[in-house]
Amino acid sequence: MRLGEFQKILDDQGIDACVFLDTDPNIPYFAGIELERCILIVPSESEPVFIVSRLEAERVLNNSRVKNAESFERSYERESLLAKHLKGSKVIGINKDCITTRDYEALQAIGRGFIFADVSDSVSSLRQIKTPEEAEKIRESCRLTDRIIEKCISSFDFKTELEVKNFLEFEAIKLGSRPSFDTIAASGKNASMPHYSGNGKIETGFCVIDFGIRHNGYCSDLSRTIYIGNPSKKERELYELVKKSQQAAIDSARDGITAEELDSIARNALGEHKNAFIHGLGHHIGIQVHDSGFRISPGSKGVLKEGMFITIEPGIYQ
Amino acid sequence: MRLGEFQKILDDQGIDACVFLDTDPNIPYFAGIELERCILIVPSESEPVFIVSRLEAERVLNNSRVKNAESFERSYERESLLAKHLKGSKVIGINKDCITTRDYEALQAIGRGFIFADVSDSVSSLRQIKTPEEAEKIRESCRLTDRIIEKCISSFDFKTELEVKNFLEFEAIKLGSRPSFDTIAASGKNASMPHYSGNGKIETGFCVIDFGIRHNGYCSDLSRTIYIGNPSKKERELYELVKKSQQAAIDSARDGITAEELDSIARNALGEHKNAFIHGLGHHIGIQVHDSGFRISPGSKGVLKEGMFITIEPGIYQ
Repeated sequence: MRLGEFQKILDDQGIDACVFLDTDPNIPYFAGIELERCILIVPSESEPVFIVSRLEAERVLNNSRVKNAESFERSYERESLLAKHLKGSKVIGINKDCITTRDYEALQAIGRGFIFADVSDSVSSLRQIKTPEEAEKIRESCRLTDRIIEKCISSFDFKTELEVKNFLEFEAIKLGSRPSFDTIAASGKNASMPHYSGNGKIETGFCVIDFGIRHNGYCSDLSRTIYIGNPSKKERELYELVKKSQQAAIDSARDGITAEELDSIARNALGEHKNAFIHGLGHHIGIQVHDSGFRISPGSKGVLKEGMFITIEPGIYQ
Repeated sequence: MRLGEFQKILDDQGIDACVFLDTDPNIPYFAGIELERCILIVPSESEPVFIVSRLEAERVLNNSRVKNAESFERSYERESLLAKHLKGSKVIGINKDCITTRDYEALQAIGRGFIFADVSDSVSSLRQIKTPEEAEKIRESCRLTDRIIEKCISSFDFKTELEVKNFLEFEAIKLGSRPSFDTIAASGKNASMPHYSGNGKIETGFCVIDFGIRHNGYCSDLSRTIYIGNPSKKERELYELVKKSQQAAIDSARDGITAEELDSIARNALGEHKNAFIHGLGHHIGIQVHDSGFRISPGSKGVLKEGMFITIEPGIYQ
């Protein structure tokens, strides 16, 4: 995605070439492929180059947007290939959020005259605004997830939380996808733990399902609260209150609003229950489930802009 | 695992406290739990401390071996808790293989007088030798995987590679486990690509299955080569040759042999086909599928010791 724009940013900032390594999510972002051990070099003024294991060379040719690849057989060759491609570069871009201290020191040893510039903010700003192609992929991922959860709820006949989780994850795998995070199915008193992980029985009361998939490289993250049995009047009111809070945030999520404002709209809509909303309202979503960018939470300095994709997930945990 | 031994190493090396962050695999190694955002501080002479999000506090109490936890509500509180617990420490251990440059710089800013010592080699040596408890977990993970693959092969009636992959991954999820790496099912000509990823039809010929699970925190990694149809005499010979190579390595894998020697025993057993064995023989296995430690490959300087768990996976790719 947006490789040309990123190269322009590098050029503007006087960066000769940017180096991404291994599990840096900017590699699948720019190249559309995830590889086990690899280096992606993005020069400001010439074609990007992949340095990959020989075992991955064919996959790069078939599946990557960056076709220009050099492969190594032994790990130590990786560094000499890197050195070769950085020859003549002076200012090197790195992503400090991802590069390990080990790799950073190795880069420093390669070129003793290198000057390093952190590109994490630039690349994060870029990634926050999705292209139409990315937007469609996220929408597709959400549509599929919605359908899976619908199927799960409409035929809800599970005895344990693990059965719910398995049903959801099987459906994801059938699509050739994977869960984008640890699926949560939390019933009864467990429903009050936002990051619950366990395998209790399905009990009468609220059951919270938090589930997402990574489909064609893009994530979804959906929560649904259902009720097992007959909710009391008070329970119905609580459910409606959370829904109202979510809707208030959806209605206010417009270009120009700050993340903090949006969070507080959802929070205030919970009235006397707002102290039971014990996490932030949401986060960016994209190639990562918690994608690059600010959280939508109290104290966040971010401002929403057109083209961003965020989650809106208020809750009452009590 | 072996927290006491690690603390003794820290003490011997004059390290006051070691800091592990976020996705460092040494966190599940020592504490037996994986958390989204966390810091594990291991002082040489006092009890380890977890710094975790408030959302994770209950899970730590229920599931972690390190029970001593402090929780933060907002991200910025993480650093002040860290500073508090490092007060009085001078020499700080870090794992350079994992710590990001961002986090390293943040640590440097916390204590301007800190001296940093890399613990990656010490912790890697420790993790290479499995405790009896770990050994049993790896064995159990392998037994379950073997059973899944057996089930897959004995009722083999799949039309596509994706169906094979889905079958294996469903079975893993049923056990409450996850695939430990991207499952490979490669049929016909695809079987000659070690890291194949795709969804072709199941064709006559060799079909390579490479599959592992992470069960109770410990990984398996098993390959099986099956044949669809009736193998020719030459194909049978090739299969037997790889099996012989694998057996030769298994027979030679003893305390004291170097990784390089073991690799070359398997390689030489392939005779004229040894150039078609285009990757290393194996790797350590444990809480990670490619666990901490040397590869079993040409040029490796490692020496095998009792208590190590490695994979032995020769192949002819042609």
